[in-house]
Amino acid sequence: MNINEFLSDRSKLMKASEIRELLKWVTENVISFGGGMPDPSSFPAKEIMEVTKDVLTTKAEKALQYGTTGGVLELKEELTKFMDKVGIKVDGPENIIITVGSQEALDIVGRLFINPGDYVITESPTYLAALQAFRIYGPRIIGVPMDEYGIKVDVLEGVIKKVIEDGGKLKFIYVVPTGQNPTGITMSMERRKALLEIASRYDLLIIEDDPYGYIYFGDEEPPMRLKAMDSEGRVIYLSTFSKIAAPGLRLGWVAASDEVIKWFELAKQSIDLHTSTLNQYIAAELLRRGVIERNIPRIKEIYRTKRDLMLQALNEYMPEGVTWTKPSAGMFIWLTTPKKIDTGEMLGTAIKKYGVAYVPGKSFYPNEDRHNDMRLNFTYPTPQADF
Amino acid sequence: MNINEFLSDRSKLMKASEIRELLKWVTENVISFGGGMPDPSSFPAKEIMEVTKDVLTTKAEKALQYGTTGGVLELKEELTKFMDKVGIKVDGPENIIITVGSQEALDIVGRLFINPGDYVITESPTYLAALQAFRIYGPRIIGVPMDEYGIKVDVLEGVIKKVIEDGGKLKFIYVVPTGQNPTGITMSMERRKALLEIASRYDLLIIEDDPYGYIYFGDEEPPMRLKAMDSEGRVIYLSTFSKIAAPGLRLGWVAASDEVIKWFELAKQSIDLHTSTLNQYIAAELLRRGVIERNIPRIKEIYRTKRDLMLQALNEYMPEGVTWTKPSAGMFIWLTTPKKIDTGEMLGTAIKKYGVAYVPGKSFYPNEDRHNDMRLNFTYPTPQADF
Repeated sequence: MNINEFLSDRSKLMKASEIRELLKWVTENVISFGGGMPDPSSFPAKEIMEVTKDVLTTKAEKALQYGTTGGVLELKEELTKFMDKVGIKVDGPENIIITVGSQEALDIVGRLFINPGDYVITESPTYLAALQAFRIYGPRIIGVPMDEYGIKVDVLEGVIKKVIEDGGKLKFIYVVPTGQNPTGITMSMERRKALLEIASRYDLLIIEDDPYGYIYFGDEEPPMRLKAMDSEGRVIYLSTFSKIAAPGLRLGWVAASDEVIKWFELAKQSIDLHTSTLNQYIAAELLRRGVIERNIPRIKEIYRTKRDLMLQALNEYMPEGVTWTKPSAGMFIWLTTPKKIDTGEMLGTAIKKYGVAYVPGKSFYPNEDRHNDMRLNFTYPTPQADF
Repeated sequence: MNINEFLSDRSKLMKASEIRELLKWVTENVISFGGGMPDPSSFPAKEIMEVTKDVLTTKAEKALQYGTTGGVLELKEELTKFMDKVGIKVDGPENIIITVGSQEALDIVGRLFINPGDYVITESPTYLAALQAFRIYGPRIIGVPMDEYGIKVDVLEGVIKKVIEDGGKLKFIYVVPTGQNPTGITMSMERRKALLEIASRYDLLIIEDDPYGYIYFGDEEPPMRLKAMDSEGRVIYLSTFSKIAAPGLRLGWVAASDEVIKWFELAKQSIDLHTSTLNQYIAAELLRRGVIERNIPRIKEIYRTKRDLMLQALNEYMPEGVTWTKPSAGMFIWLTTPKKIDTGEMLGTAIKKYGVAYVPGKSFYPNEDRHNDMRLNFTYPTPQADF
């Protein structure tokens, strides 16, 4: 039988992540700056083991059973306290839903808000997997360029006006304000205020994707979360345990108005009923016992050191005409070569001849044709080559 | 801000599960036959604890890290052997993908195959959460009635012919052949053969949802899986760890042709990247050590006993004119009252006056207006009322 005859039109919008495809090339004797994985030495494995034992001793009947779509109450209560410490105030558990990583939250954002043809704005470049998640739902995505302070708010406002003039329906602005993937840029406070002000003026939703905010390792005070400054219930806040505990747990969360959370629950119910109950109880205990809070300074230290090492090596070895970002958060440095270089074409040589991998920048752009950037991950590779 | 102005048209197709809504009424002194939960005494909690300890001692770096979208290789290899024992032969791990419960597989089925307006056939009544998952994608769902041997294949063929005559695009037939939810009916071998033959003749996909096949507790030989009889790669097979281990792990799997599995991976990548690595390693070890195989006879025994108890009570207490199924698998008995009774209207009285809950049958019908059935769960309630 020919399966192609059965596929939906939607399926034709699905594209394998180029990153995942490229990384298949990477063998053991290649130094890979390509992935986006945390340093495994930062995982609190021993504590997770202890906590799991306690959870299964004291509440196996609950932790192994079906749970509610919204998530385990204890975890949502702990998250309320956890977010409170960074200035995000929510009324209670009804403002939180637990998801299978932030990725699921991105899919639900697309599912709930995007009609085919609707407009969506992102930073340019932006997180590739967000583009993948949204694209299935058929939006028109407009990328707004960034500088070292984050998204250019003047350009943003121009784009919004143009969409409105053209009679388009603009649904949301998606941003990764702190340690952005792929650029490592952290949006300044000034820009954050301007962004909120614009969203308010034009009555738009903001999706704040914050995987890296809790492990900000810059020298200056970290800027406030957009959600912490949101007085109008306009910000839908996404975060994850993948960078503060371990990605293998597949736990993320969304904080928003209770009305928005109810819609998220409705959407999630038909996607996977609920997130692993066992993993949710584990995470609740990791928060309650302070394991995560004690682990965060350690993660920051590892990432700061590795970032410094990569910046130092770039300074030392990169030729004239190459520039790169100096991130205060996140896992990536964004490197720009002279225009004549196509980093996509260069990758084969980099891997086969020089034993080094990276991700070509092209696919992070929603609608610009730029081929001379690359994303470098500094959190996963070891400081010394292992071979 | 008014969130309704931002919602997609798709969101308006989302409906909270009536079951979940109704169960909010159920307080501690109500005997609930309403849910669909396994008996918590069947969870291998101690073994899960031991296995988790070993996994986190020997391979924490992998088990807590990001994984591939398709799933953990060791688990897929164990599943190959596990399915082989019930006659399902797959070439290898490339024929399997690990999902967040079977529910995620149902969502992906909808996502991959359904264009708005496409036709989909299900048993009538059928699994409510499958209807919810499919409906988001805008299909026309046709329910085909069942008798004690399962879906009526003569009616099925008539329906198919009619759709084709009308120029409709028919995508798949969704069935729960063993211990069906909600009826408890197991499809006979004869019907299974006829179903496959019809699917072959009209070139259709079959979605075989098999949560209960491994805990078949009937006296007769269990019928073969459709997938075990599928020589044309026409059957997409779904199953889950929720009924053979524990739902809280949120682990399901799909077995199909490598081509179909590649499409599932592509779809899943943008939904949630991958299923919890930790939970997958736990499940792989539960299979490898024979924990699941040793647990299965125990689960069967518990369910057979509870089913017998419920059948006995129904025999004893039900008035003339009420009929019900005698399931050999699954978790439910389907009870039909005389037509004058509306089980939906009766539920309030049942709960408030008599302290008993069930699920009204109406919402299990894709397109019939029947109001005189109810679904009774016999696996979760204890044999004695606890109060």
